[in-house]
This record gives sequence, structure tokens and C-alpha cells, in this order.
Amino acid sequence: MTLQDVLIEGRWQPSRQPVDTFVAVNPRTTMPLSQRFPVSSDDEVRRAVAAASEGASALASSDGTRLASFLERVAGNLEARASALVEAAALETGLPAAPRLRDVELPRTTGQLRQAADAARRRTWQRIVIDTQANLRTRLEPLGPVVVFGPNNFPFAFNAATGGDFAAAIAAGNPVIAKAHPSHPETTRLLAQAVFDAVVAEGLPPATFQMLYHMREETGLALVAHPAIGASAFTGGKPAGLKLKAAADAAGKPIYLELSSINPVFILPGALEERGEAIAGELAGSCTLGVGQFCTNPGLSVVVADEAADRFAAALGQHLTTAGVGVLFGEAVLRNLDTSVRTLVDAGAQLSVGGQVRRENAFSYDNTLLIVPAKRFLERSESLQTEAFGPVHLHVVADDEAQLLGVASALEGNLTGSVYSASDETDDALYERVAALLRPRVGRLLNDKMPTGVAVSPAMHHGGPHPSTGHPGFTSVGLPAAMDRFVARRCYDGVRSHRLPPELRDDYAGTPLWRSIDGVLKLGT
Amino acid sequence: MTLQDVLIEGRWQPSRQPVDTFVAVNPRTTMPLSQRFPVSSDDEVRRAVAAASEGASALASSDGTRLASFLERVAGNLEARASALVEAAALETGLPAAPRLRDVELPRTTGQLRQAADAARRRTWQRIVIDTQANLRTRLEPLGPVVVFGPNNFPFAFNAATGGDFAAAIAAGNPVIAKAHPSHPETTRLLAQAVFDAVVAEGLPPATFQMLYHMREETGLALVAHPAIGASAFTGGKPAGLKLKAAADAAGKPIYLELSSINPVFILPGALEERGEAIAGELAGSCTLGVGQFCTNPGLSVVVADEAADRFAAALGQHLTTAGVGVLFGEAVLRNLDTSVRTLVDAGAQLSVGGQVRRENAFSYDNTLLIVPAKRFLERSESLQTEAFGPVHLHVVADDEAQLLGVASALEGNLTGSVYSASDETDDALYERVAALLRPRVGRLLNDKMPTGVAVSPAMHHGGPHPSTGHPGFTSVGLPAAMDRFVARRCYDGVRSHRLPPELRDDYAGTPLWRSIDGVLKLGT
Repeated sequence: MTLQDVLIEGRWQPSRQPVDTFVAVNPRTTMPLSQRFPVSSDDEVRRAVAAASEGASALASSDGTRLASFLERVAGNLEARASALVEAAALETGLPAAPRLRDVELPRTTGQLRQAADAARRRTWQRIVIDTQANLRTRLEPLGPVVVFGPNNFPFAFNAATGGDFAAAIAAGNPVIAKAHPSHPETTRLLAQAVFDAVVAEGLPPATFQMLYHMREETGLALVAHPAIGASAFTGGKPAGLKLKAAADAAGKPIYLELSSINPVFILPGALEERGEAIAGELAGSCTLGVGQFCTNPGLSVVVADEAADRFAAALGQHLTTAGVGVLFGEAVLRNLDTSVRTLVDAGAQLSVGGQVRRENAFSYDNTLLIVPAKRFLERSESLQTEAFGPVHLHVVADDEAQLLGVASALEGNLTGSVYSASDETDDALYERVAALLRPRVGRLLNDKMPTGVAVSPAMHHGGPHPSTGHPGFTSVGLPAAMDRFVARRCYDGVRSHRLPPELRDDYAGTPLWRSIDGVLKLGT
Repeated sequence: MTLQDVLIEGRWQPSRQPVDTFVAVNPRTTMPLSQRFPVSSDDEVRRAVAAASEGASALASSDGTRLASFLERVAGNLEARASALVEAAALETGLPAAPRLRDVELPRTTGQLRQAADAARRRTWQRIVIDTQANLRTRLEPLGPVVVFGPNNFPFAFNAATGGDFAAAIAAGNPVIAKAHPSHPETTRLLAQAVFDAVVAEGLPPATFQMLYHMREETGLALVAHPAIGASAFTGGKPAGLKLKAAADAAGKPIYLELSSINPVFILPGALEERGEAIAGELAGSCTLGVGQFCTNPGLSVVVADEAADRFAAALGQHLTTAGVGVLFGEAVLRNLDTSVRTLVDAGAQLSVGGQVRRENAFSYDNTLLIVPAKRFLERSESLQTEAFGPVHLHVVADDEAQLLGVASALEGNLTGSVYSASDETDDALYERVAALLRPRVGRLLNDKMPTGVAVSPAMHHGGPHPSTGHPGFTSVGLPAAMDRFVARRCYDGVRSHRLPPELRDDYAGTPLWRSIDGVLKLGT
């Protein structure tokens, strides 16, 4: 079986002395797929870093319109190769080719790339501030090579090769070293081809984009701490993410993490009374969307006990029982999910629905509902906030409003928090108290909505307090804000005019851009 | 001797069971000053955190104009109490009452406070983005209690109680816990009175501002990692700063550091030939300004050997020999400075001028010039980048341009980097190569200027790559950008209009503010 080439130093080439090799597995059959991929050595990773570092300054000085053309060409390439991409991703992830991969995720990915192109062209992200009296000129500039570690759950839209982190890093003018998720290497290889073909076609520095399939943990730790790296972005599990964070932090290198989130949903008494059964259906749908393998999957709901709450729990269990059972991304996901369910049960949650690995020739787990009294939740709030990555939901029942508020106070940092309330003002007083507790604990606060929809909009925020991410000020979705992760603030003090970047000159005459000049922010030349 | 009260929980109160007490020392006499101050216990620090946490949400929802009035009142209080403040600071720091403290640093401090007030009123820092179609509304909001650790070198302008970090944190709506620098506790006490009197007069939550004089190292480490803290800011020495960083990082808490910087100055051959002696005078003046105790003190200069370079070094030595010898902040500064000089000498630098502790009844050190060949610098570049905090300068002499570029490549992250070049285009080719290497290594790139002037301007940047700070994207000077350190990004998704903060509503009708609505950025209501 031949070993697939890696993409480093501006060309596809055989991996040199790989430390190991691996194959992906079809989660619908549990059988290995046919291609074999290398696990790169320390030396191979170092060569990628050297090449990225060498190309960084040429890329940094590239015109925004050139980066924009490149990103648009990547989007076009993805569309032109959609069939092969969807086929590979469906095989490696078990996700349905349609509608999910072809009709939802691929358009989302190309949409992100085009929004990034637009941001690269507008250059608002530079946040130029000029003081003509003091001859001080400050803006945000590319930081240097960005390493992207992609997750398992969005083979296109968060892929290290074409996802949001890639798009944001490139739009700001940084080379990218993509580290594939080893559960979908062939998908990533095809995406990397689409990207690299665009690099060549646009004549960008060849090491603008490099891709490796896999590396040992210690190699990754050294990579994020490498002096020539600008920053890293990681989306994935907490244990691996926190190790990378420790390594990057010790080296003083920025790293942006999206780690785990249980996305609490509070359903207030008036809402339960008014439309509890409809909300139960909505919650079950959101829990099982993508087989529960979304970072915004609602893993926890909280209600106050009453008759409506009883009906709600019964309906939720019923929906989860009758919903189709999906296929998980792989054996590790399945094993971790089962371990998480055991942790929740050991901490006092009662299994109401499901709770078992399915005995089938696929990586599959019951849709699962666990129930716990709020009193118990508050006693074991750390264990009972264990993320169960998959179609597993923990329902918390409070004796009264005070206990419900206690649950809100005990929550760790999350990406999202939802509150359902009666359509009139019945729940408003309680809403205010719940929202005041949730607001500092979540990145996105929702009303009467499940958190699984993450619109690609400049007004979206996909981030939140630790441990859901590594820093509460940044987002991985929403442009140009997502680019803030991959820039450095730089000032030109008394620098002679002809040496300044064009955008910072008094006589700038290019396409209009936003600049704050002597305290006045305006769009102009 | 009575022990001075701490300011916690909304009132001045005796320190409860302090773990120790201390006095400040007059650096001009080396004699202890008369007041005695407590070293706060873990419990006292925890009480301050609890009080800050309790007041945080009321403060966060304060109107920007209210925060602005408060900041302006603080500025007014400082001006009204200028004589007492200047007298205390002169006694504790040895800095001249005039012009430095009264005519330069105090106006700088009140100017910063008024700029912060202006930023609080304008609210541009919130960077509001609204998508009306998706009903998504995102902005930056206060993060929660901010701990500020003040440095020794700007008793007013960077004081934890009234300096730039305080002003930026408050303007964004965060309570501040100020940790005084123990070398000037009485100055900090007087400043804290001025601040707290303004808290009371403006009717802000009483724990908006708290102040402690000192705490044990382990107490500080627990403080920056405390779950109820939003973020910390530290300006000071690298060993203490890196310990705090490790503690905060491990807890997932943002911390912003300004650690150390040697601020390299490259003087290109044409400039040396044209005006070398004038530059030598300028450099000596910058090196000895504030007795060399500025974070932007130029600690390193680089030239290519030739006759003009010889004349330059001679003139620099002459200026440093004849310049007045100042008084350092304290014994620790003096001891560290002497240790740094020994480190530089051990690594191969030759003492050209000075190099000794002065035998006087004051903490004083010779103005010192060390010289090292670039070849040696490159062999021992880590040791030879040791910061010597005081009037000590290392002059690096390269054999040729390639060696000079080698020195630029070997530099760690710095706050600033200066390049002097001929007034015509003689040096332009070399300038381009030096600037390309310096640009990613420094926060502020200067032409024909020494780095010690840090204008308080929105276009200023006072930050840089690690190890000069903890993150290259942030600044501690320049508003509103400095506020970015103390905010969290937060999104409202489908939140009912009457529950939104007024600034995010479609029918917002307050004073005009900048909002990006459906892709259009405009100033309006």
C-alpha cells in the first residue's frame, strides 16, 4: 500500500522517515479504509516551520486583493471538486453526503472563504489609527505562521485545510500549517490539493499553505512552542487542548482553543406551561443533530419541578427514544462517550433513556437521557458538567427557582447558554436573574432557541470563557473578528513616509479603507 | 507606629491579621520612611475578590457617562492634591519633584484619565456588530474584576491605583483591585484616597476600587488564578511576571504583562557619518532619562565598525561620563542592576565607562557603557540581551552589514526598535533589510528617534512580542485599544428587544455611537 504524500516546502512529497503510519476507518462499517498516511517526524515538522517562516514576510506584504482572489479560488476549487470531497468525507466521517455534507457544510465552507476574501479586501481588521501631529501610526499586522489543528466534527467547515481558522489566518496574511484530524485524512488531502492548486495558480509563496496528516503528541507540543510560529488554533478535546495550551503558554506563544461546552438550556416555568412539549421536540432535535457531535450541542437542560416539567421530561425521553440512531465519528468518540455517561451516572445522574453502546457493525450509541435533581447537581457540579460528546443529554430538575439559580451559578464557562421563557411577561422576573448569572458564563446568550445553529455572520460569536476556550475575548466564527487571533499590534513612530506601508501614509490613494485619523474614523483614501 | 489601613470592601479599614509589615525607604538617604504598611493575608485578599465580584455586575451596567464622570473626578482630585502627592512620591522614589513628578508625570496621569473618560463616553471600544436578519448582536463587555500590579518606575502614571491599567479597566466597566508597588506605598495610599473619594462622590458601587499594599508571592499567584477574577495586568520584572503568568495560564485566566525590553537602536553608517556625535548625545540622554529606569530605555545600540563608529563610541562614553548620576528606586534595583552588569561582562562585554555601585548614602550606580563585538554578541546572544534596568548601555560593534543584520535576527521580542539612517537615501537599502528583521520583533518601530518618549495617543502602541509582553496583540498605552485587555466578547442571539442592553437595540436613541449594522459601520443612534 503506498503512503500518501505530505504537502510541505511548497510541494507534495513523500514523508521522510515517518515515525509511524495509519489508516482511517469507515465508522459505518468499522472497517479500515484503503489509503495509508504517514505520521510525520519532528524533523519533517521543523522543515514545514522553516518553510512557512521563510515565506511569511512575502505573504505579509501581499495585497489584500491578492489574498482575496486566492481565498475565492479555493472556494471555487471546492465547488468544482464537490463530488469527490463529499464522497471522501462521507466515507471517513459517516456523515450523510446529503443534505449535511453537500448541501449544508460545503456551502458553509465556501461561504466562509468568501467572507474571508471580503474581509481581506476591506482591511477593516487592520484597525488603523493615525496621529498626524505625533506622526504615530498603528495597525494590526499578520503575526507569522499559524498552525491549525482541525477537529473531527466538521470535515470541511472546521478542517485545518479549509475551515474558519485557515480562512481567518490567511485573510490576515499568515502562512498556515494545517494538521489534519487523523479521522479524515483523505478528505483533508483532497482539500489541501484544492488549496495548494490555488496557491500555485495565484502565484503566492509556495509555503503559504502546508499540510501534515498526523504527528506524535510531543511533536505537536514542540510545534506550538516553536519560536518561528506566530500562533496556533486548536479545536478538539480538552485533554489534548490543555496540553498544547500549557506548551504554548510556557513559550509565550498565543494559542486559541475551542475545547468543550455543555451549552446549558434553561426552560422557565411559564415556557414549560405554554409550550413545553414543543420545546421538548426542539431540544431532542438539537441534541441528536449531527449525532450530537457539535461543540454547541445542548448537553444540559434545567427546569423547576411541576406538572409541566414532568410532561416535558416524558416528551423529551419519548423524542429521544424514537429519533433515529446515528453513527459516531469513530471508536475513540464512542469510547469517550460511554465513559462520560458512566461518569455522569457515578456522580448521581439516573439513566432515563438509552445509555448503551449499540451492538451493530458501526460506531453507534443510544440516544440517551439522564436525569438528576438540582440538589445532587450542586453537590457534584464538577463531575456533572462532564461533556458527553454525542447524543447524550443531562436534564436537571430543581425544586424551586432558587435551586435553578444555584445551577446557573455553578456553571463553568460555555460557548452558549439558552433561556426559554413564556411569550408574555410571566417569566420576565426570573429571566432577569437567570440571564444575569448566565451572561458572564457564556459567549452567546440565546432566547427561545437551541444553540446548534451557528450562523456565519459578522455578528456571530463562537467563543466563551474558559474552559470552553482559552480566552474570552476571541471568536473562531464571524469575520473580521476571528482574524484578531492571528495579528500583532504594530506601531510606526516617526517612520519616513516612503517607508510606510501604503495604508498608513498620509497620501494613501488606494481603494477606500477605514482609518481613524486624528480622532476621526472614516472610510476614505 | 500605627499601621496604615487597607482599602477593601468599600471602606478603609485596619488590615486583619497581616502576615507581615513593611516600611518604604528613601532612596536618596537609604533611610526608612516613617509610615508602616501591612502585608495582607490570603484571607484579606479573598475578601477583596469577593467584594469586587459582588459589585461587578452593577458596575458593568453603569452608563459610560457615569464612568467618565468618575474618571474625570479622579483626575480633578489628583490635581487638587498635587502637592501632597508629589511630595510623597519624591520621598519614596527619589524622582525629582519638578519637573518630572509635578510637571510631566502628574499631567500625563490626569491626561490618561481624561482620555479614558472620553473612551468610556464614546463606547467605540464595544465594537458593536448587529445582524438584523439573523437577530444576532455582538459587542465587547466588561470582563469582571481586574487585578493591577503596579511597577516601581512611574509612581503616578503606571500606579496600580491611577495609572493606565486602572483607567482602561474602569473605562470598560470593571472593578479594580490595585496592588501597590511596595517601594511607594504612601504615594499609592494617597492616590487610592483620591480614587475612593471619587467613588463615593459619584455613588459608584463601593468596591469599584480596592487597594492593598503588599502580599506574599503565593498569595499573588492564587489571586491571578482566582475564579472570580476577570483578568490581571502586571508591569515589572520578568521573574515575578513569569510566575504570575504561569499561575494565571494554568487557571485559564487572562493576564497581561509588560516584562522587560532592551529597545535596540540601530545606527546605520550614513547616519553615523552625517550626525554621529549628535546621535551619541541623544542616546546618552535617553539612556540616563529617569535614571535609565524606563521600560523603553535604550539598552542596546548596534553600528558597523568604521571611523565614524569610533567617534560615536567615544562621544557616547564622554556623554555618559559627564552626565549627572541619578538615584535609583531602591536597593533591589541597585543590586539587580549590578548583577546584570556582571552578567553582561561575564558574557564578554567590555566595560568602557562606569560599572560600579557608587559609594554614597544613596542608591546610586555609575552611568555605564559596555562594548561588545557583534561576533561575540551572536555567540552569547541570550546572556547579552539581559536587561539592565538603570543607566547601563551595551554598544555592539559589527564588522560589516551582514553581522549587523545577524544581530537584528538574534533579537528577542522588544517593546521598541529604532533605526537611525542618513537624511538622504544613502542608508535606504540597508534600512529595508534591518526594518524587515526588526518589524516582527518589536511593537513600535522608530525612525531617527530614541524610544523613551511614549506619547499618550490613541495611535501609540506600548506592547510587543514575548518576552517583552505576554501577548503581541495588546497595548497598555493608547485608548481605546488598551481596554481590549479587559473585555469579553459577548453575543445576544434572538434575545428579545426589551432585554437587550440599550446600545444593541434597533430603537436605540441615546447619544450617537459607532455600530456596524448589517455590514454598514456608522456613527448614529
